[in-house]
Amino acid sequence: MLKEKRLNAIQDQHIQLAHGNGGRLMRELIDNLFAYHLDNPLLDTNVDAALMPIDGKRQDVMVTTDGFTVKPLEFPGGNIGSLAVHGTINDLSVSGALPKYLTLNAFIEEGMEIAQLDRIIASLAMAAKTANVSIIAGDTKVLARGEGGGLYLATTGVGVREKNIQLGMNYICPSDVILVSGPIGDHGTAVMLAREQFGMRGNLQSDSTSVLPLSQALLKILGLKFMRDPTRGGLVSVLHEIILATGLGIRLFEPQIPIQAPVRSVCEMLGYDPYYLACEGRIVAVVSEEQAEEALTALRAVPSGEQAAIIGILQAEQPHLVLETELGGERFLEDLEDEPLPRIC
Amino acid sequence: MLKEKRLNAIQDQHIQLAHGNGGRLMRELIDNLFAYHLDNPLLDTNVDAALMPIDGKRQDVMVTTDGFTVKPLEFPGGNIGSLAVHGTINDLSVSGALPKYLTLNAFIEEGMEIAQLDRIIASLAMAAKTANVSIIAGDTKVLARGEGGGLYLATTGVGVREKNIQLGMNYICPSDVILVSGPIGDHGTAVMLAREQFGMRGNLQSDSTSVLPLSQALLKILGLKFMRDPTRGGLVSVLHEIILATGLGIRLFEPQIPIQAPVRSVCEMLGYDPYYLACEGRIVAVVSEEQAEEALTALRAVPSGEQAAIIGILQAEQPHLVLETELGGERFLEDLEDEPLPRIC
Repeated sequence: MLKEKRLNAIQDQHIQLAHGNGGRLMRELIDNLFAYHLDNPLLDTNVDAALMPIDGKRQDVMVTTDGFTVKPLEFPGGNIGSLAVHGTINDLSVSGALPKYLTLNAFIEEGMEIAQLDRIIASLAMAAKTANVSIIAGDTKVLARGEGGGLYLATTGVGVREKNIQLGMNYICPSDVILVSGPIGDHGTAVMLAREQFGMRGNLQSDSTSVLPLSQALLKILGLKFMRDPTRGGLVSVLHEIILATGLGIRLFEPQIPIQAPVRSVCEMLGYDPYYLACEGRIVAVVSEEQAEEALTALRAVPSGEQAAIIGILQAEQPHLVLETELGGERFLEDLEDEPLPRIC
Repeated sequence: MLKEKRLNAIQDQHIQLAHGNGGRLMRELIDNLFAYHLDNPLLDTNVDAALMPIDGKRQDVMVTTDGFTVKPLEFPGGNIGSLAVHGTINDLSVSGALPKYLTLNAFIEEGMEIAQLDRIIASLAMAAKTANVSIIAGDTKVLARGEGGGLYLATTGVGVREKNIQLGMNYICPSDVILVSGPIGDHGTAVMLAREQFGMRGNLQSDSTSVLPLSQALLKILGLKFMRDPTRGGLVSVLHEIILATGLGIRLFEPQIPIQAPVRSVCEMLGYDPYYLACEGRIVAVVSEEQAEEALTALRAVPSGEQAAIIGILQAEQPHLVLETELGGERFLEDLEDEPLPRIC
């Protein structure tokens, strides 16, 4: 990257909400500013978890970190506490690792009700226990009233991975198949509804959960090349990252993409596109054509994977994301530019 | 702890600034809420860094995490970026570990000037490089305007420690000696002055730096029992933690405690007590009586330890913190209760 281009992008600019939406602006901020300064051989902004060289013999140690801010702090199916556990162990899981340890940072706003904080940390502890991970270090800071959104959390996770596991976007090639482990957009929609600002109520729940059972099932498939959990920016952002890294195109088959009826109706009423909505308990996987059906069967055998589906293919064509619609038409799904959605993870 | 007592402390209560000041309320919040829920054999709220069992053979792997919020974001001698590196590597250093890796979380407020963010991350990167640690994973979140203090950072650090190192408050006994590696309160005072709200200006700089050279020097002293960096709540909070854990008393000798003249005058003018002010590049160490002089010599041989001093002793008496004043009188230094100081780390 040319230094001049970097400086042009920085001068007289201010942070916008879109710098946090998982799309192009966020990637530019990370590449041109954070990765530019922090550059070192172990830092790779394209992976979910980094290798951490420790003198382990049979296993690789992996680390990942994630920050959490969501409104409201509690929503159907979870809260910021359970989310902070699932988000980080899911990043380890899709990297092929078994999550072991977490650290926790809490930034708590002055005036927060302690009973609510107690519920959230109880839920966080339960999520950690269920996933068999221990929280081994933590820190709390208090933010002055009016300088926080109630509660921000950050978790760092450490896991171990068998030495022979090879996953990454660099293994992806044309004719590979894209799978999703379940319906998309549940988390994004549930959080939007919980805000009540639309005057709607549904019994839709966030899909927030550990994807470890799904990732462990997929790791047994020899043709598995890549996994990711589609959080910020949803399915589209994951697929655009693949396009950017591989230079390949992607064709999605709209009728095959699982979307729950309430998600579909909320999106139709409000004009949102479910392909950009966050999930917090799903996996997008890329598998070789020959083993796609086997991978599908493996996912469907896991309780949270019963609605898994093959949704698209990689193509040696223009590096675009094309959606084949139910009516046989084609629609380009562009990368996120501005902030089209409420911030929900 | 009785469950009823825990619930009484939580019902109808709200988070206060004092829950973040390093004193009694903060410890109660951590013990009665966070540690209560997150309880597991590896979590110990009395240590700076936790042991992380990995299949390492000759070395223990240690982990620590810290959140950072400071106003202003940039101050003489550092900024929130360098602070976020020093704070975490110092927690590893005083635990006897050699810091190796960091992860970084950034919560950035909408509207923040990107040029300022760039300066801060450049400074963070320089601090990491100087300390020979690599930042191997990171995450950014954008906070809506009015819901952040410009920038909050959290760092998690991983380091390795020789297996034979034994440090901890449980090794402390009567007649042990307390040392400090340099003048106290520089960071707290420099940040207060940088706020300009007092209309004062000085050339005092924050002491923010890596304490690794100091901790490595002390680790060669056989009688070394405990090290800590006196950050939030300053010298007094560290010493009260020792009193709480050991049941012993501490006697400090006021004329021996190094305090720079500008710190002393600012405190006198504003009515602050330097013993409660944060340092970000000092070590408080407890050493057996027999090796106290040797430890002092070792500290003074390190560039940032030239003003190291023996400042007090442990006593098998009432568990109080007593300051012997210059005039021969005695003053009790109480644990922090409410928020007497601007939040500065």
